Amino acid sequence: SSSEASSQGKGGADGKAQESKGILVTSEGGITKITFNRPSKKNAITFQMYQDIILALKNASTDDTVITVFTGAGDYYSSGNDLTNFTSASGGMEEAANKGAIVLREFVNTFIDFPKPLVAVVNGPAVGISVTLLGLFDAVYASDRATFHTPFSHLGQSPEACSSYTFPKMMGSAKAAEMLLFGKKLTAREAWAQGLVTEVFPESTFETEVWTRLKTYAKLPPNSMRISKELIRKNEKEKLHAVNEEECTTLRARWLSEECINAIMSFVTRKPKL
Amino acid sequence: SSSEASSQGKGGADGKAQESKGILVTSEGGITKITFNRPSKKNAITFQMYQDIILALKNASTDDTVITVFTGAGDYYSSGNDLTNFTSASGGMEEAANKGAIVLREFVNTFIDFPKPLVAVVNGPAVGISVTLLGLFDAVYASDRATFHTPFSHLGQSPEACSSYTFPKMMGSAKAAEMLLFGKKLTAREAWAQGLVTEVFPESTFETEVWTRLKTYAKLPPNSMRISKELIRKNEKEKLHAVNEEECTTLRARWLSEECINAIMSFVTRKPKL
Amino acid sequence: SSSEASSQGKGGADGKAQESKGILVTSEGGITKITFNRPSKKNAITFQMYQDIILALKNASTDDTVITVFTGAGDYYSSGNDLTNFTSASGGMEEAANKGAIVLREFVNTFIDFPKPLVAVVNGPAVGISVTLLGLFDAVYASDRATFHTPFSHLGQSPEACSSYTFPKMMGSAKAAEMLLFGKKLTAREAWAQGLVTEVFPESTFETEVWTRLKTYAKLPPNSMRISKELIRKNEKEKLHAVNEEECTTLRARWLSEECINAIMSFVTRKPKL
Repeated sequence: SSSEASSQGKGGADGKAQESKGILVTSEGGITKITFNRPSKKNAITFQMYQDIILALKNASTDDTVITVFTGAGDYYSSGNDLTNFTSASGGMEEAANKGAIVLREFVNTFIDFPKPLVAVVNGPAVGISVTLLGLFDAVYASDRATFHTPFSHLGQSPEACSSYTFPKMMGSAKAAEMLLFGKKLTAREAWAQGLVTEVFPESTFETEVWTRLKTYAKLPPNSMRISKELIRKNEKEKLHAVNEEECTTLRARWLSEECINAIMSFVTRKPKL
Repeated sequence: SSSEASSQGKGGADGKAQESKGILVTSEGGITKITFNRPSKKNAITFQMYQDIILALKNASTDDTVITVFTGAGDYYSSGNDLTNFTSASGGMEEAANKGAIVLREFVNTFIDFPKPLVAVVNGPAVGISVTLLGLFDAVYASDRATFHTPFSHLGQSPEACSSYTFPKMMGSAKAAEMLLFGKKLTAREAWAQGLVTEVFPESTFETEVWTRLKTYAKLPPNSMRISKELIRKNEKEKLHAVNEEECTTLRARWLSEECINAIMSFVTRKPKL
Repeated sequence: SSSEASSQGKGGADGKAQESKGILVTSEGGITKITFNRPSKKNAITFQMYQDIILALKNASTDDTVITVFTGAGDYYSSGNDLTNFTSASGGMEEAANKGAIVLREFVNTFIDFPKPLVAVVNGPAVGISVTLLGLFDAVYASDRATFHTPFSHLGQSPEACSSYTFPKMMGSAKAAEMLLFGKKLTAREAWAQGLVTEVFPESTFETEVWTRLKTYAKLPPNSMRISKELIRKNEKEKLHAVNEEECTTLRARWLSEECINAIMSFVTRKPKL
């Protein structure tokens, strides 16, 4: 079976329409696969894509698939939040910031509450929220081409997706702050050493090895995996929701700050390499 | 001095009786040593052994020894819970599940509350609860022959010994879930990189190096070590007890599930290599 | 601009007086630099230096600098608490213990509450509180000459600076206890693998590489960094203050114990290499 969420209203069934979709959702062999699918924009995430992903996760949480997997189409995993979410808002930054905080909070809550094993297959560079979200995944497999970059300070912003909590917990404050405050970009190997990545594979064998493994995992007793995940998540679910709320409130204020507006305008104009 | 807990009623003092004991407890040079001692069964842990270990730890917590050390006799450290605890129960699975949850809870609480430094000398493969318990130890020294395997999902079960809390805390959720949900088996080196093992030694020098070190540690000021451990443990003792209770309740329900009963029956019949 | 706190009353402005100061505080290019400056005593920290550091941090928290950096003059980063704080106290150990607990608590609270990015440039061996404090830093860069040693048990003492909480959180209990209970000394590389150190540099390029990086970081949007740090710290600030209080109470009692007094007297007399 295969269902697809459209990023631009109702999509047709033909190949051309498919290319215009922000995410692709397929399900096969017990695995729901959600693909960031804007390769021409390095899989940057639009408002519509956040909402399509929320919907896809809600569907996956109750259907008969066992594991849900995120990956990216093309060279990038995802370049993170599409900054034109702000610059193209008809009501200006204030409206964009209000909408952004609401969408972000629901988006991250959907990951916090997702009841089945959640795996990231990081095929290439990951930036911003596509990195911070990984702290809410159950396994993160990375190609050695992948990099992990959270340049929040450079953009006048602040951490999201509970990374202000999950990153220090996972890697200690001295390594988390270098990413979250100073915007240090990590190689796949460094991200592995810091606990963000479960295992790194050579690009040449990445897809084959990872999908072979995932197909095996998808055959394990599904209730055991779901119940074990629930047990693990229960230890901090309340905390994660509170952190998410605090981060969204902080980020909303950041988006309206001079530091952030200047940084975003400068970024959109100059388009520097992240 | 040397005291021994019998796994099969009252043991005699002669060598033959000793071999039939599930655990051996000796104390020398300030060190209480508790040895899993069923090498013919890969040191699988019976109901009686759980109770003998509880007793041994209660004794060690108040006697004049300084450090307590666990190790295994023969090739294995321990293959974990003896599944015949379930299949041989006279009252069937329901009685076994009830008894199991009560014994397990008291067993794990004894580790949570143990007041002196607790060290594991992991001489070979460790499976299931012998792995998850390590999250409650103060040092874990491993031979490079050791492996670490928690195939809960494969057996239709769920994590215990507070590993649903200690493992994500120690290694991050992406590495913890691969062990606890997907049953990935780790080498000693991998377990070291994930924080589960303090140090890995070549098999050839393992025993000599580790015991030399432990003898030195046993001569440090005992009150300082006890008080420092109390300080560390106090930060999460309440949480650990709550997690243990939740895990035991969950596991009791798992033991009565179809997934688990099928998996255990299949395991006992087919005896696959773990 | 440059301000200097004196460790011996009011210091003059000439070079000679400067050499007698316990810490040096300079600020340039957005960076406040606090240098442990008793190289002849391996930068051991006197009561006066604790108070000078508290003052320097309070100043740095409200001035216009962006990042605060600690480092050591000479071969050592710092050998930790100056044990003559105890042996030279006019009112004996009881008075020294009372004063010590009060000073320590305020000192550590100042680090917990410091609102800007805090970086350690660990130029050489670090001992005791100069190590445990690192758990409250946002980045720790170490020369490969650096070592990390917390011989609390050897001295009849117990962990401070929230290390009973930050170390197990960062590195897992099995690695934290080896440092905090057994006084294992770590190389820079080992400290990196355990999450205590952000990055290790060869001694020959250490200062150049680290300061180049820090100057870049000091040019990032300051409000974003401050707000991101506040977000991270907020998750555990209350816990850190509670842990600090508990550790100081415990340590005060330790300082009056026979184990500790014997160990300190023996240390001061024999001056063994730490």
